[in-house]
Amino acid sequence: MAMEGYRGFLALLVSALLVGFLSVIFTLIWVLHYREGLGWDGTALEFNWHPVLIVTGFVFIQGIAIIVYRLPWTWKCSKLLMKSIHAGLNTVAAILAIISLVAVFDFHNARKIPNMYSLHSWVGLAAVILYMLQLLLGFFVFLLPWAPLSLRALLMPIHVYSGLLIFGTVIATVLMGVTEKLIFALQSPAYSTLPPEGVFTNTFGLLVLVFGALIFWIVTRPQWKRPKEPNSVLLHPNGGAPEGAEGTMAVNFGNMDKSDSELNSEAAARKRNFALDEAGQRSTM
Amino acid sequence: MAMEGYRGFLALLVSALLVGFLSVIFTLIWVLHYREGLGWDGTALEFNWHPVLIVTGFVFIQGIAIIVYRLPWTWKCSKLLMKSIHAGLNTVAAILAIISLVAVFDFHNARKIPNMYSLHSWVGLAAVILYMLQLLLGFFVFLLPWAPLSLRALLMPIHVYSGLLIFGTVIATVLMGVTEKLIFALQSPAYSTLPPEGVFTNTFGLLVLVFGALIFWIVTRPQWKRPKEPNSVLLHPNGGAPEGAEGTMAVNFGNMDKSDSELNSEAAARKRNFALDEAGQRSTM
Repeated sequence: MAMEGYRGFLALLVSALLVGFLSVIFTLIWVLHYREGLGWDGTALEFNWHPVLIVTGFVFIQGIAIIVYRLPWTWKCSKLLMKSIHAGLNTVAAILAIISLVAVFDFHNARKIPNMYSLHSWVGLAAVILYMLQLLLGFFVFLLPWAPLSLRALLMPIHVYSGLLIFGTVIATVLMGVTEKLIFALQSPAYSTLPPEGVFTNTFGLLVLVFGALIFWIVTRPQWKRPKEPNSVLLHPNGGAPEGAEGTMAVNFGNMDKSDSELNSEAAARKRNFALDEAGQRSTM
Repeated sequence: MAMEGYRGFLALLVSALLVGFLSVIFTLIWVLHYREGLGWDGTALEFNWHPVLIVTGFVFIQGIAIIVYRLPWTWKCSKLLMKSIHAGLNTVAAILAIISLVAVFDFHNARKIPNMYSLHSWVGLAAVILYMLQLLLGFFVFLLPWAPLSLRALLMPIHVYSGLLIFGTVIATVLMGVTEKLIFALQSPAYSTLPPEGVFTNTFGLLVLVFGALIFWIVTRPQWKRPKEPNSVLLHPNGGAPEGAEGTMAVNFGNMDKSDSELNSEAAARKRNFALDEAGQRSTM
């Protein structure tokens, strides 16, 4: 299926994948070269799984999950398949995030370091809990076939907004984590003398930020949204109604189910009943 | 002018103002009660202007500047007036941000503390520089009357995206700043024992995050966008064309100039010529 601005999309997608992949590589180099390496023994080696798993799962994989509906090669795949991939990637990210929390709590407990005192830990734990709720809500409301369309229509704007808010919060939490770790770990030479590890890890922080910025750009371009299902066009053989529906379709940023999403728009809000009717006529699976 | 979901908008606006105002109050309590107070003498008193001015200007005022087009009471005001208020608030925020940087550099220099080594300083300086560029671009392209409409149409999606990206980055930078400051300043009792100042300042960090989340929600609801100028409706007395235009109008998140913004949408992208023609017929001032 043709996508408008395909080359621009491709350039940004490749950049996002590259920067995201580089972020993971930078985390690995950080813990393997500058820090003590990886292990599961209650020492700093166990702590080091925390950044590795967070950046791999909670940043990189979550970022890909956010833009997966926008890959034009998947537009011929069924919506159910794409929802399953979106849910699957987010589940993998959630599992990695939980293991990474176990690593840091284990490390703290073994070293008698208090848990949950820092702003990083408060915001990070809130993000993980909200992510789990989001995953459960997504599974029961959007993936399973039982939720009424009115409920999907009501929750879709919230689902998209929370997803992007959590992703942004995760990136902010990573930046706080880097700040904390560098102040604690870099003693001689101190962080303030900007030793090579400081430059390297600050650069890693910038990479994570740029990755987030690229994902946000890709997901908020309306022309790169997955097009509406062909059967919905068939339902409106005359040009009038689909024109309006298309306008409402272009509204939502985020990779939402089209038939659920139409309420999240100025135009759609003014013809709520029409949108609901249309959603009722189209398969969302 | 009537706004759909006015009560919801009002509730969110009041919440945002309250949380934003509370964030400023929390910063003042922090520096006046828990820290040394305020002054301009190269000591910690001078440093303390840094959080106060950043939270007041770069967080609170910038947040208000982002949503100012969405206040329904302003919809009867001219677009030029609203642009001037948007630009004015952002200019005030920029000036406060620069003074806050002077405060921290002055303090560092007086105390022989190195500048620009932390991730907080890298990301923060990048945000201030990008904010200045954004302000200049906004001034020359959107406020002054000389930029061609095609250039405005091209740059508007970038302006909106960068504005929200910078705002999000500023919030992340505040969270890093709080993290740094608490680790450095809280020694006995240490931050890790979570003394009252730690609880208070972590709570302040959460408030700033919630303020950002509220601004993002308000600015991404398409039904709360400033409606298109009445003369554009008059140009299309038959229902057909404005219907499509309304669909494209609802697309853009951010408080952008309607006539510039229509290119940022799936539907609008497909009728670029129409959108440009319409923009040409409407005053954007």
